[in-house]
Amino acid sequence: MAKTKGPRRPKAQTPKGFRDYFGAEVSARKAMLDKIAEVYHRYGFDALETSAVETVEALGKFLPDVDRPNEGVFAWQEDEDWLALRYDLTAPLARVAAQYRQDLPTPYRRYAMGPVWRNEKPGPGRFRQFYQCDADTVGAASVAADAEICAMLADALEAVGIARGDYVIRVNNRKVLNGVLERLGLSEELLREPRPMTVKEAADAVYSEMVRKNIESISRLDVLRQIDKFDKVGETGLRELLGEGRKDASGAFIDGVGLSDEQIDLVLDFMTSMGSDNAATIANLRETVGSVPVGLEGVEELEQIAALLDAQGYGPDRIIIDPSVVRGLGYYTGPVFEAELTFEILDEKGRPRQFGSVAGGGRYDDLVKRFTGQMVPATGVSIGVDRLLAALDAKGKGPSRAQGPVVVTVMDRARMADYMALVNELRQAGIRAEMYLGNPKNFGNQLKYADKRESPVAIIMGEDEAQKGVVQVKDLILGAQIAADASVEEWKAQSQQVEVARADMVATVREILARYA
Amino acid sequence: MAKTKGPRRPKAQTPKGFRDYFGAEVSARKAMLDKIAEVYHRYGFDALETSAVETVEALGKFLPDVDRPNEGVFAWQEDEDWLALRYDLTAPLARVAAQYRQDLPTPYRRYAMGPVWRNEKPGPGRFRQFYQCDADTVGAASVAADAEICAMLADALEAVGIARGDYVIRVNNRKVLNGVLERLGLSEELLREPRPMTVKEAADAVYSEMVRKNIESISRLDVLRQIDKFDKVGETGLRELLGEGRKDASGAFIDGVGLSDEQIDLVLDFMTSMGSDNAATIANLRETVGSVPVGLEGVEELEQIAALLDAQGYGPDRIIIDPSVVRGLGYYTGPVFEAELTFEILDEKGRPRQFGSVAGGGRYDDLVKRFTGQMVPATGVSIGVDRLLAALDAKGKGPSRAQGPVVVTVMDRARMADYMALVNELRQAGIRAEMYLGNPKNFGNQLKYADKRESPVAIIMGEDEAQKGVVQVKDLILGAQIAADASVEEWKAQSQQVEVARADMVATVREILARYA
Repeated sequence: MAKTKGPRRPKAQTPKGFRDYFGAEVSARKAMLDKIAEVYHRYGFDALETSAVETVEALGKFLPDVDRPNEGVFAWQEDEDWLALRYDLTAPLARVAAQYRQDLPTPYRRYAMGPVWRNEKPGPGRFRQFYQCDADTVGAASVAADAEICAMLADALEAVGIARGDYVIRVNNRKVLNGVLERLGLSEELLREPRPMTVKEAADAVYSEMVRKNIESISRLDVLRQIDKFDKVGETGLRELLGEGRKDASGAFIDGVGLSDEQIDLVLDFMTSMGSDNAATIANLRETVGSVPVGLEGVEELEQIAALLDAQGYGPDRIIIDPSVVRGLGYYTGPVFEAELTFEILDEKGRPRQFGSVAGGGRYDDLVKRFTGQMVPATGVSIGVDRLLAALDAKGKGPSRAQGPVVVTVMDRARMADYMALVNELRQAGIRAEMYLGNPKNFGNQLKYADKRESPVAIIMGEDEAQKGVVQVKDLILGAQIAADASVEEWKAQSQQVEVARADMVATVREILARYA
Repeated sequence: MAKTKGPRRPKAQTPKGFRDYFGAEVSARKAMLDKIAEVYHRYGFDALETSAVETVEALGKFLPDVDRPNEGVFAWQEDEDWLALRYDLTAPLARVAAQYRQDLPTPYRRYAMGPVWRNEKPGPGRFRQFYQCDADTVGAASVAADAEICAMLADALEAVGIARGDYVIRVNNRKVLNGVLERLGLSEELLREPRPMTVKEAADAVYSEMVRKNIESISRLDVLRQIDKFDKVGETGLRELLGEGRKDASGAFIDGVGLSDEQIDLVLDFMTSMGSDNAATIANLRETVGSVPVGLEGVEELEQIAALLDAQGYGPDRIIIDPSVVRGLGYYTGPVFEAELTFEILDEKGRPRQFGSVAGGGRYDDLVKRFTGQMVPATGVSIGVDRLLAALDAKGKGPSRAQGPVVVTVMDRARMADYMALVNELRQAGIRAEMYLGNPKNFGNQLKYADKRESPVAIIMGEDEAQKGVVQVKDLILGAQIAADASVEEWKAQSQQVEVARADMVATVREILARYA
């Protein structure tokens, strides 16, 4: 058979690892971010929207020893320059803080919300474009800035609908940890071969001069990495990871850091030094750091943060000092914090587990040094947008069907103007509504359409109704409940469809919507 | 002298043609888009947020005869695929409408707001990343869909603050124009060499099969292009452009299309056929198109649109039929519309001129044909985000200083906790506020900071005030007015600074803010 070659048609497909967001997905995220932005704004933080595209030079070359200079980001050459899509919101903040340092207020409080792009292998739930939501204070050395961010984070979580008691913000101080590591005899200067970082780590770290240092003092970083697993592996597991190593769930052996038992005891002392209240925790920490100056400085900062928060009424029901918080990477230089949701959800296997972390941050003092050579203190927090959305969903705070549009059906093509008048009346009354705009021949298709739209109500007006000056108002949510659940016989007694005078349409629809709001 | 080479520092700079948006710039745009989205949502339109990145294949190769396959867009190769940043919101809609055609409701009403990217030479006020704001109905052949979009556009303009009477939406129909062109003897099949399109034109046209046709029948397109200049060149100018050509302002000669006088008369008849009301205009148009079927069909559609809008109360004070609206490019196939702001602003030279067009759109019926081979009717509108923002600014609806944060100054480092308590009180009362987080040594710097933040109010509490249980509340807007304008002596009589009991702080601040709201 002869091949007939038509013009080759392009594939209608999102690129690998990208996705589209529809309707309620967009509005739910937007509603959440709007509430957070409202809190950030109230705290005096200014919105900043940088361009999605940066020069590769400004972003920094962050992955050593790979063939392509820009592995991990989406980059391309444009005339002389290499350009790239931003991989987070902190690198652009560093660029902005340097570029506009004469014009910006000092300190500069800014928040930013928007997509970032990572050229990583996509996986289930892992996309190459996703949202970040950051707030940072640049140019404030005082721990009052850190305390403020913790309070703001608590307010933001409550604003989006996480009840007090369902979350806790844990605060620690990297200086205390550094004091402990120093007592362990692990200096920052210990040299070892750097291992290539993951993009995630690099993205977290690229803007920081600390990175170089930390790669060199990898043994200290190794300890940090293990400590960060405390949550998952528990005390016994952490002892093994800090010592000789351990077998993981799959039976594979994971090398340990090789600390002595004495050193491990000290680490564990530190990790478990949370007392019955902040004062007790601080007393424990003071003991653990001994006379190491940086450690003592860290303990004092934690004491100040606790006092500042207390003065504002943010007690341990919302924010606590917790020495087990590490926040992985090495570029933090002072206070670190993490917001955890404490309610339980069911995991894939139906077992209850705590929801876990939804936000974190801390102090990093080298933000603009790459550009200007000057140290500028900064502290900030990043909310995991998708995680927090999932949490709201788990709490049943997702979008409801009552948000679909009322559909005015088309029974009679000659009455289009009447239907448009009906739909306009609903809209002007603030009710989401639309007229069916497809081919009206098959009325069943119109109801199928209303179903796809998750419409709460359909309006029907045929020749008869028009003559009598009435409309039929059909409760589609009730209809769906009856269809879905045979046991709701009593619902059937209620009418799914009422005939009302045209003048009463808006009031009737309002009543039905209020029932499901 | 020996060169000392330090490490080369990266430049802190946005890439050429890109910019950052700060504070009020972000919030003003967001506030405007939120109001528009609220209207679109009420009309039953669903948000759609596609990924910023598309395959070049899905976007379409749209510039003929250039060396680089992707001139005009930002594109790069990723493994096998070429990827690119979207250059508008319609091409992704086409891809989505094809990709999800089984799942989306038909008709599908969607709105989209977000940045798009164009790899063009940047100019003053022309950036390579900018916002678009689109609403489209896909899959509705009825002109009720076009009428709905016009009504929605009117509501959206009023929602953002454009008063009724300050705008008008002009509606025309490409079919009427096609009827006229057919009467002129200009067929669509007339072949000529294509000229390369600009990216703007290509972006407007790429998703449409019409493009190819229009490039081939370039003479008809040439007529359209000239007609589109009617606004600027007037009747005499248009006669010259349609005939032998004309000298432009710089003295350069512009070739004419070469129509006969008779043909030119018919075009001008059409362009000036607006009557005293829609009925009169429609009667004039009916005469101009004669017996050409497509022209008559167009006139009937306009008549229907006018009737549908009338039934909803959208009269000629908001929406009128105006045959002089052309909307440049050739891919429109039916109704076209344009929103114009009718109030005057001063141009660069201080002369009054009408603000002009802020939105436009129309019907284009080949949206997904590239992908599926099927014709799908669609109609939509795009609001010029930056233009509309500029209009609001010109109308004095921009952000006001009252939106800056109240600044709680730091007089005494030992009282940080007290200051934080004050700032928290303000914030919990819903008032935007912050504590000064910089080095508090120099009080003058704190007031300079408040000035940079455009703060309306500063709170001062030193040792004395603390002892007495009072705070100083300083009205910074009044202070700035006094400083700026020596003639406001009477203002001086009013106190810029009042001492109030600490318990009255919130009420006093509220009062001052209300004064400037």
